[in-house]
Amino acid sequence: MKALWLEECELSVRDVPMPAAAGEALVRVLVSGICGTDLELARGYYPFTGVIGHEFVGQVVESPDPAWIGARVVGEINVDCGECEACRAGRPTHCEKRTVLGITGRDGAHAECLRLPVRNLHRVPDGVSDEAAVFTEPIAAAVEILQQVHVLPTDRVLLVGAGRLGQLVAQVLALTGARLRVVAKHDAQKALLDARGIATIEPAEVEPRRWDIVVEATGSPSGFDLAARALRPRGTLVLKSTYRGEVTLALAPFVVDEITIIGSRCGPFAPALRLLERGEVDPTALIAETYPLTRAIEAMEVAGRPGTMKVLLRP
Amino acid sequence: MKALWLEECELSVRDVPMPAAAGEALVRVLVSGICGTDLELARGYYPFTGVIGHEFVGQVVESPDPAWIGARVVGEINVDCGECEACRAGRPTHCEKRTVLGITGRDGAHAECLRLPVRNLHRVPDGVSDEAAVFTEPIAAAVEILQQVHVLPTDRVLLVGAGRLGQLVAQVLALTGARLRVVAKHDAQKALLDARGIATIEPAEVEPRRWDIVVEATGSPSGFDLAARALRPRGTLVLKSTYRGEVTLALAPFVVDEITIIGSRCGPFAPALRLLERGEVDPTALIAETYPLTRAIEAMEVAGRPGTMKVLLRP
Repeated sequence: MKALWLEECELSVRDVPMPAAAGEALVRVLVSGICGTDLELARGYYPFTGVIGHEFVGQVVESPDPAWIGARVVGEINVDCGECEACRAGRPTHCEKRTVLGITGRDGAHAECLRLPVRNLHRVPDGVSDEAAVFTEPIAAAVEILQQVHVLPTDRVLLVGAGRLGQLVAQVLALTGARLRVVAKHDAQKALLDARGIATIEPAEVEPRRWDIVVEATGSPSGFDLAARALRPRGTLVLKSTYRGEVTLALAPFVVDEITIIGSRCGPFAPALRLLERGEVDPTALIAETYPLTRAIEAMEVAGRPGTMKVLLRP
Repeated sequence: MKALWLEECELSVRDVPMPAAAGEALVRVLVSGICGTDLELARGYYPFTGVIGHEFVGQVVESPDPAWIGARVVGEINVDCGECEACRAGRPTHCEKRTVLGITGRDGAHAECLRLPVRNLHRVPDGVSDEAAVFTEPIAAAVEILQQVHVLPTDRVLLVGAGRLGQLVAQVLALTGARLRVVAKHDAQKALLDARGIATIEPAEVEPRRWDIVVEATGSPSGFDLAARALRPRGTLVLKSTYRGEVTLALAPFVVDEITIIGSRCGPFAPALRLLERGEVDPTALIAETYPLTRAIEAMEVAGRPGTMKVLLRP
């Protein structure tokens, strides 16, 4: 089958063997989405050799449980062992032996087919298009914030960053009724937020020490600084982006102000699908381009340009 | 009256005017305790000119409410305005206009007398000695951890640091029933913990990525590193010490592991006094020396030696 292969920071579209069964379902990929993590893998920030990609919607073509055959599905990307302490404690996304679709120890979604255990699959409701369903994974990552932090409807919430993930975070946070403002860098980002009725704010307008919850989704030290300055004492800073390299920071103010900092990664698929089904979240305006898988390298280049929203691949 | 005066990093015991009334109670200090913050003020880490000291037990000699006259009291150190947003939101210890006894904008407790608003005072139960009651403020700071974090009885809890504050944190955490281990540097610290039946652990024995909650009470980068390595994914890191200067850290692992970091400062006095009254916490074994106020400079020197526990002053 055709797939987007990564090896030693070199991408190629090549023919690879179909993934081995190993008791898992075989899913024919309908659409896959290029994520910031894909770009970071290609830049060598994490070691990985194999098929990249972890955002997808597909159709089950083989399954140990025949009830799944033919189903249109999305899939949780962390494949847990079910036996380690983290799994037994109800934290399977932190399984110590996990493989992660297209990221760690498991071929991914920018391919004609992929394998996942049946327990990772979720049926896509009929009313949700492929183009919307392919965003389930990043919407789940946005929903993870609500899983970790109790956002009060009366809270002042600041989101710093309005890129691919930031846009989805903004849509999810807007559902809480909180007073949400978003710091967006590019006009196209602002236009997308504006179309959803979500207010933006310029960095210079952000009142310092006033925001109950600040979500940092830029992954940049300047974004972190703005977020930390905005937060009120006893406020909560959610880190929704991974930071390359090290950040130097004075911890004393975080202690004196009793700040909570919380890292946030993968989230639950079921509520993400419910929000998609109800139309509470609509990611399709984020689609910048759709390329055939054969042109995946060009698609990755486009996705890597600053300000580009979501680029999709069709096998 | 006599007082320990700080001015431009110079300490002196001198005669100063009695503090002005301003509608507040006048408290005759019975005993005061030297805290790490006093030492840091004297080293010039924070700007302050005036009488230092914020841990005390005293007797009310003047009060706008006569019911308090004669009462033996301890006092919350943050004096709030009652009107700013933080006060109105129920976070008076984070009042934007607060003064802090012996720390910010208000003369402190290493003196014959001090002033505090009546609303800051708490009566000391009869069964609690002056030598125990003088620890109410740091015990409250230890209790603040339980106010911020739900420590489960089944949790593995690691405390890094067993100095003046760490010892009290250890005693408070031990009450939760959690599996507590304490990293202590000095033999005297270990002996104090041992006498309370609290188990210590050597840094080399601390299993990485296994502890549900880690409390960092050293304020040192090496303590922070050990604490961060010990924490399990989705664990909680409580920062119970202020850090001088800046700390360089890679934030990405905190995001990937969805760690919560929470700064922790002043705590509630009422539960601290209840624990003292019930004998659940006994700080008196921490008393290293008691000096008359006239020898306060010598007392500060002794308190500043590594491994010294609590040094008290008697006016």
